[in-house]
This record gives sequence, structure tokens and C-alpha cells, in this order.
Amino acid sequence: MDTGRKLKVALLGCGSVGSEVARMMTTHAEDLAARIGAPVELVGVAVRRAGRPRPGIPEELLTTDATALVKRGDLDIVIELIGGIEPARTLITTAFEHGASVVTGNKALLAEDGPGLYAAAAQHGADLYYEAAVAGAIPLVRPLRESLAGDRVERVLGIVNGTTNFILDKMDTSGAGYADALDEATALGYAEADPTADVEGFDAAAKAAILAGLAFHTRVGLDDVHREGITEVTAADLASAQRMGCTVKLLAICERSADGASVTARVHPAMIPLSHPLASVRGAYNAVFVKAAAAGQLMFYGAGAGGAPTASAVLGDLVAVARHRLGESNGPGESAYARLRVAPMGDVVTRYHISLDVADKPGVLAHVATVFARHDVSIDTVRQQGKDGEASLVVVTHRAPDSALQAVVAELRELDTVRDVASIMRVEGE
Amino acid sequence: MDTGRKLKVALLGCGSVGSEVARMMTTHAEDLAARIGAPVELVGVAVRRAGRPRPGIPEELLTTDATALVKRGDLDIVIELIGGIEPARTLITTAFEHGASVVTGNKALLAEDGPGLYAAAAQHGADLYYEAAVAGAIPLVRPLRESLAGDRVERVLGIVNGTTNFILDKMDTSGAGYADALDEATALGYAEADPTADVEGFDAAAKAAILAGLAFHTRVGLDDVHREGITEVTAADLASAQRMGCTVKLLAICERSADGASVTARVHPAMIPLSHPLASVRGAYNAVFVKAAAAGQLMFYGAGAGGAPTASAVLGDLVAVARHRLGESNGPGESAYARLRVAPMGDVVTRYHISLDVADKPGVLAHVATVFARHDVSIDTVRQQGKDGEASLVVVTHRAPDSALQAVVAELRELDTVRDVASIMRVEGE
Ligand SMILES: NC(=O)c1ccc[n+]([C@@H]2O[C@H](COP(=O)([O-])OP(=O)(O)OC[C@H]3O[C@@H](n4cnc5c(N)ncnc54)[C@H](OP(=O)(O)O)[C@@H]3O)[C@@H](O)[C@H]2O)c1
Ligand SMILES: NC(=O)c1ccc[n+]([C@@H]2O[C@H](COP(=O)([O-])OP(=O)(O)OC[C@H]3O[C@@H](n4cnc5c(N)ncnc54)[C@H](OP(=O)(O)O)[C@@H]3O)[C@@H](O)[C@H]2O)c1
Repeated sequence: MDTGRKLKVALLGCGSVGSEVARMMTTHAEDLAARIGAPVELVGVAVRRAGRPRPGIPEELLTTDATALVKRGDLDIVIELIGGIEPARTLITTAFEHGASVVTGNKALLAEDGPGLYAAAAQHGADLYYEAAVAGAIPLVRPLRESLAGDRVERVLGIVNGTTNFILDKMDTSGAGYADALDEATALGYAEADPTADVEGFDAAAKAAILAGLAFHTRVGLDDVHREGITEVTAADLASAQRMGCTVKLLAICERSADGASVTARVHPAMIPLSHPLASVRGAYNAVFVKAAAAGQLMFYGAGAGGAPTASAVLGDLVAVARHRLGESNGPGESAYARLRVAPMGDVVTRYHISLDVADKPGVLAHVATVFARHDVSIDTVRQQGKDGEASLVVVTHRAPDSALQAVVAELRELDTVRDVASIMRVEGE
Repeated sequence: MDTGRKLKVALLGCGSVGSEVARMMTTHAEDLAARIGAPVELVGVAVRRAGRPRPGIPEELLTTDATALVKRGDLDIVIELIGGIEPARTLITTAFEHGASVVTGNKALLAEDGPGLYAAAAQHGADLYYEAAVAGAIPLVRPLRESLAGDRVERVLGIVNGTTNFILDKMDTSGAGYADALDEATALGYAEADPTADVEGFDAAAKAAILAGLAFHTRVGLDDVHREGITEVTAADLASAQRMGCTVKLLAICERSADGASVTARVHPAMIPLSHPLASVRGAYNAVFVKAAAAGQLMFYGAGAGGAPTASAVLGDLVAVARHRLGESNGPGESAYARLRVAPMGDVVTRYHISLDVADKPGVLAHVATVFARHDVSIDTVRQQGKDGEASLVVVTHRAPDSALQAVVAELRELDTVRDVASIMRVEGE
């Protein structure tokens, strides 16, 4: 190990996360040096807007020319915290071409083009580390990539988006509707001005793609992930969940099929029983269950986002990558050897909670039950409620393929006696 | 990376964990090869007793001469799963001397002589990995050693011994006394024939020493850990805890002092509120909270012991160490640069729950309160209960140094009006 050296680090982006990384690199400089075995020096910080106050960042380090920074040629490590696809992708590949390793928190880019980034890293003998990309501070990438590397992961199930968890939590505890809960999340800074990436499930889907890839040693792209957001979740859904002893959470679920030959990845709101540990994950926290053949059930819990927590994950990666630079070695690269088939949502086996508005006359339940039977979906419980000539029917099914459940719903919509399919929600975590 | 190679592995010990490691090395051979980048071959298995049936282990691999096995000279990795201090220590150092890296689950040895083992590994350019030594399958060593390497850990608090958790859980739910609960644990295989290491807190203390060392980058030996077991915990303590909305758990707690200059490590039973996530950790499960300056509060949960879960951790280490062999690199070695002072138990600041049997006459409470005041320990709540001329007094204090609380207790024992100090228990997790 070459210990006379100083490692040169460039930071791309100095927003919520980047500014914390810069701060911690300064305040923890001695600790970092001791843990790495050599000092790390921040040699440049790229931002978009010049002339803004950047407390704690020496003026002379700032640049708006990120491309020139990554092309310096003397960098050991580039930390990418700009986000989005471009220019982040080009900057990262340019960093590899110029001999640097990369640490990033960019889940969108990893989900879009993980294989391309891994290939560029491998081609140049560099590291690509991204603990911060999934579940902020929670060590999840490293446990999947390394701790469970000798085991066989069967399922990953978790809450990986704090914004939607905050909104659903609010709806659950206050009875508020979706729009009001979103407004509150925005006012409190838990949701961005444009909340689309969070509330439509894109952010969680990107994380699901990354987690599934790591868990199953198989490439899983964003398009492989079935995605439903929370914008259609109603106060009535939450109330109905409560009556069942459940709450509603936006879950990311990656599963290996029973025969081991295929995998699925999906993000959607689901009812989970209050007794499930995920039900008590509050506010902007994240929690992820991993089930592996030998290890059994593991749970990881912590702050899923925020400048400082995410920076903690970035700095952990920085230490690992810096150690590799000194030792002229590399951490694990892409592991996609298993090449399992990524099956469509229709293959997923799960349970459904369906609310129907029906005509309040005899024989309706028989009609409805016949539809379920025709598609081999067996019914667990039915609850009937009459109100002024109208009635509502709540059906909870046993486990069945999603395709069968979708066929049931389509046929129910056609029934004369069914006025409306008021809500459809999967039931998980049992 | 040399990819034409086969990596040679020797297994020392083929008991609960070792037999599972051997089994998984066979059944997962292809996966392991793909994840490592080269096949791993089991070339020898050392046991104590010859001639026992060892299902799945080829006869010709077995030997009772562990020393000869580690001296072969062609080994890449030695997996030590014998346990105890000797011959494990000599076998591990001999393995290093003969050029192998080592994976072990031996917490007793690591707590006894971690620095010696690390030094031997470093001297021979080898790896020493031990994820299995703390909390079985739960990735905890790697997150502390690597994921949080850029952060500053402030506290580690957890349930790290499944046997005692099972016993306390039993006492809590059934009202059983310690002896009966221990009998049940033994009958069900949760406690060993000689349960001393578990019930006296030695096992948890070894883990606390390892965790504190990793968390604070400071050497913490077994003697530095304040240790109290669960043998004195009574059904009355559990009942008293329940009245307070608490339960009793054996906790391992490693803390950095507020000024950052010293650390403490301790293992003792403590009351924790039922609302704390650790309160609901049932049976033989383990759970550990880690609080770090930037990351905030993290929790790790899973199976803390058992053959297969522990083997999962061993194989994760095997993959990492094998990858280093191929890449001619090393993972992190000992990190003890911080050299913080390990402070005694008296310096720990915590809360106390004290039950006193007192004379049922006026002025007793005043006497008792005076003693607390004299040592600057402020009282949170007092509950008085009279029964037939006797009375009991339950005092819960605010946070105070353990030394002050001990002085209070010593003085209470001397009071004429205090018949007995029936129980003393710390209150944690608030
Ligand atoms: N925030 C979190 O809690 C969190 C958690 C996990 C992962 N992440 C990931 O971390 C990354 C950064 O997130 P963030 O919340 O820190 O974002 P942010 O606050 O929006 O900061 C983005 C930074 O990138 C800079 N930037 C934008 N375009 C640039 C360009 N073309 N060239 C140079 N600099 C440019 C911005 O410059 P200006 O300062 O001049 O605008 C800003 O400093 C994203 O990939 C995100 O997904 C964030
Ligand atoms: N069990 C768990 O759940 C667990 C969890 C975490 C960590 N660990 C750690 O893992 C290690 C192994 O635990 P374990 O439960 O698997 O122990 P175990 O079931 O008692 O097995 C010990 C093995 O070591 C062999 N052995 C004993 N002395 C030997 C010697 N002098 N030379 C060669 N072989 C010898 C025994 O041989 P025979 O088969 O001939 O008796 C047996 O195969 C310990 O350090 C333990 O603390 C265990």
C-alpha cells in the first residue's frame, strides 16, 4: 500500500447531499485519513449556478465546468451528486475514461443504465459504488452485494420512498385525502415542488430495479418493474384498511419465483397488517426486509433520505473506494451471471382487497362469487354493507396470480349488478 | 485477476455452523464460483471425533489433525468454526503463517485477542473476516467496518444473545421464574447444557467488545466490558416492568461519551419501554440499533444464531476474502487509531428502577429521598404500596452517573427503615 499519497477527489453537485459530503470531508478529515490510510483532498466542486453562497466550500474549488473537472486526469475519485440522466451519465463515463473511480447516489441513472456504467468501470479497472442510491443511510447495497453474497435471496420487500410514506402516514392518522396530505408534505419540505417522481412511484421503481439486480444477480431495468403510484389512494382505502386491521404503504417488492427460474419486481400501494413491522415505519423513514434461504428474514431500518444521512452512505463508499485505490484493487463489479427471466406482473402471486358498489338485491353476491370462481381465485372473506338501495361488497381473496385477479376485475366491471369497482388493492406482508 | 485458478478452502470444525457451511459450499458451488470469479474447493475438514457420521462430507476430506491441515501450505482460506480460545487461536495464526486468509465466527477469541489476530493477519498480508461472530446472519460487522466508515458512531445498543432473550421473553409472557424459563430453553435446544456463557452475559460481552472496537476505532477488550447476566432477574422484576409499561431485555450498549473523549461498553439486563422496537424482539432473534452523527438511527434485525443463518454470514465473508485472494488485495484490517479511553461503568449515565421493602411508617419516603438528593440523583417517580405493616417503594430516577446511583443504593442498604433493596435495574431505550 502506497501511504505517502494524497487521494484527489472531485465533487459533482453541491446540493442537499453534496454540501453535506463536502462539510463532512472537512470536519472528518482526520478520521477519514486514518480509516483510509491516506488523506483525501477535495480538489474541485462542480455546480450549475455560479456566484451562489456555498458556506464552507473554498471559493477556488468551485466551478461550473463539470466536464473540465472530470477531465483533469489526476483524480482518484469522482463523487457524482447532480442527479438525473444527463449530464450525470457522460460525466461518470468521462471520469472512468480519465482513470477515476466513481461514487454516486444517482438511482435514476443506475436504474436506467446500470450495465453501461458497470461496463465502463470494468473497462477502466475502476470502482462504481452507490450505497446512497437506495434507502439513504441504510446499509443495503453493501449487505446485498457482499454480506449475502454466499446466500440465495428469495425476496426483498420494503418501504423505500420517504415522501410517499409520509403522505400515506398522514392519510392514515388524520383521515386526510391524498391532495391535502400531499400539500402538507410539500409545505413541510417532504415533497418536492414537482412530486411526480415520488408519488407516481418512479423513485421507488428505480430502487426496486437496483435491489432486484443485486438480490438476484440478474439485470433488471426500470421497464421491468411494474409501477403504480399513490395518487389514486383514497381516504376510503385507508379507512377500509383500518377496518381490516391494516394500513396502506407504498411497497417495493422483488421476488424470485418458487421454481427459482424467474424474478419479478414491482412497486404499488398495498395493505399490510398493523402487526407487520413495516406498518409502524413512520414519516420519512425507510425499512427493508430481505429474506434469504440460509439467513432467513433480515430487516434494515433507518433514514431513507436527507442530506446528512445520505452523505454518510456516500462517505462510507468513499472510504472503501479510496482504500481500493491505495491497494490497487477493486470492489465487486456487476454480478448479473444468473440471467434469470424477469416475469411480468401477471405472474406475481398475491392477494387482493376489492371494494364494489353493487345493486342491493338478492343474488348479487352469487353473481360476483361466480366470477371469482371462473378464474380460480378463491375468496377469503366477503363483507356486505347495505345503504339506501345501494350496497357495498368488500372481497378479500386468497393468493392467486395477478393476471387472474385482473381478469376477475375486468369481468366484474361488466356485470349489470356491479355499479362500480370502487377500489382494488393488493394485500401483502402476511 | 487470475481466473484460471481454483481457490482451496479448509474448514476447521463441522458442528452446527461448520456442517451448514460445508453443505452450502456444495449446493451453492456454481453461484459461489460466479460471485467470486473462480471456483472454491473444500480440501479438508477438521473435526475432533473421528468416525462420526458426517452427512454430505466426503470421507477423504475429514481429519482430526487440524494442525496438519492448516500447515498444508497451499490453502487460500481457512474457515475456523471450532470455537473457544485454544486450539482455535494457534490454528488461525498458523494459517496466517502458511499464507492463508481466515474467516471465523469465534467471538470469544476475537474479544480475547482481536489485536493479536489482526496483527498476525497484517504481518502476512492476509484477511481476517468475522461477520458471523456478532449477531449471526445479521450484517453488522460489515456495515460498521465499511458502510459507516465515513461517519461517527455514537451508540450501539442491542439484543445480541438469543438464549437470554428467549428466557426473558418466556418470563415476560408466562410469568415464569428464571429457573423454569431456563429449563424450557434447555429442553427446546435454545440453551446449551452448560448455559453459563449465555446467562452470565459472557457471550454478549464478547460481542459488545467487538462492536465497540469497530464502532469507535478503539481497542475494547473483554475486561473493559461491564457485565451482568440475567440469573438474578426475577418474576417480580418482570411484573414491575410491566406495571411501568416496560419489559426486561439483556442489552449490550456501547457508547461514546458526550465530549467524544471516552467510550463505555456494558452488558446488563435493563427495562425498556414496550413502545421501543427492541421490546418486540421475540425469542431467539437479535436486533441492534446504531446511532451515528450523520446517518442517524439505524436498526438491524434478524436471526442471531443457528447453523444456517450463521453459515450465511460465513459464506458472505468467504466470497469477499476469496475475491481479495484473486485480486491480490486485502479488506480493511484493524482500525484502532482513535485510541479513546475506555471509561469504567461508574461513568455511564443512565436511569435506575429501584424496588425497596421498607417499614410502613411515616417519614420513610423522606429518609429515602434525602439519600438520593445527597448524591445528586433526581427522582422521576415514586410509587408506594402498603401491605401488612410492610410497604414497598419503587423509585425511578432521572439520568445520573452509575457511580452516583451505586452510592445511593449502598447507602439505602444501611438505612434502618429500609428492610431490603429488592431489585435494582437500569432503564434504557428512552
Ligand atoms: N436528497 C436526498 O435525500 C437524496 C437521498 C438519496 C439519494 N439522493 C441522490 O443524490 C443526488 C443529489 O441529490 P440532491 O438532493 O443533493 O440534489 P440537489 O439538492 O438538487 O443538488 C443538485 C446539485 O447538482 C448541481 N448541478 C445540477 N446540474 C449540474 C450541472 N449540469 N453541472 C454541475 N452541477 C450541476 C446543482 O447545482 P446548483 O447548486 O448550482 O443548483 C446542485 O448543487 C441525486 O441523484 C439524488 O437522487 C438524494
Ligand atoms: N451455533 C451458532 O448459532 C453460532 C452463532 C454465531 C457464532 N457461532 C460460533 O461459531 C463457532 C462454531 O460454533 P458451533 O455452534 O458450530 O459449534 P459446535 O456445534 O460445537 O461445533 C464445533 C466443531 O468443532 C470441532 N472441534 C472441536 N475441537 C476441535 C479440535 N481440537 N480440532 C478439530 N475440530 C474440533 C467439533 O468436532 P466434533 O464434531 O468432532 O465434535 C465440531 O465439529 C463458535 O466460535 C461459535 O461461537 C456459532
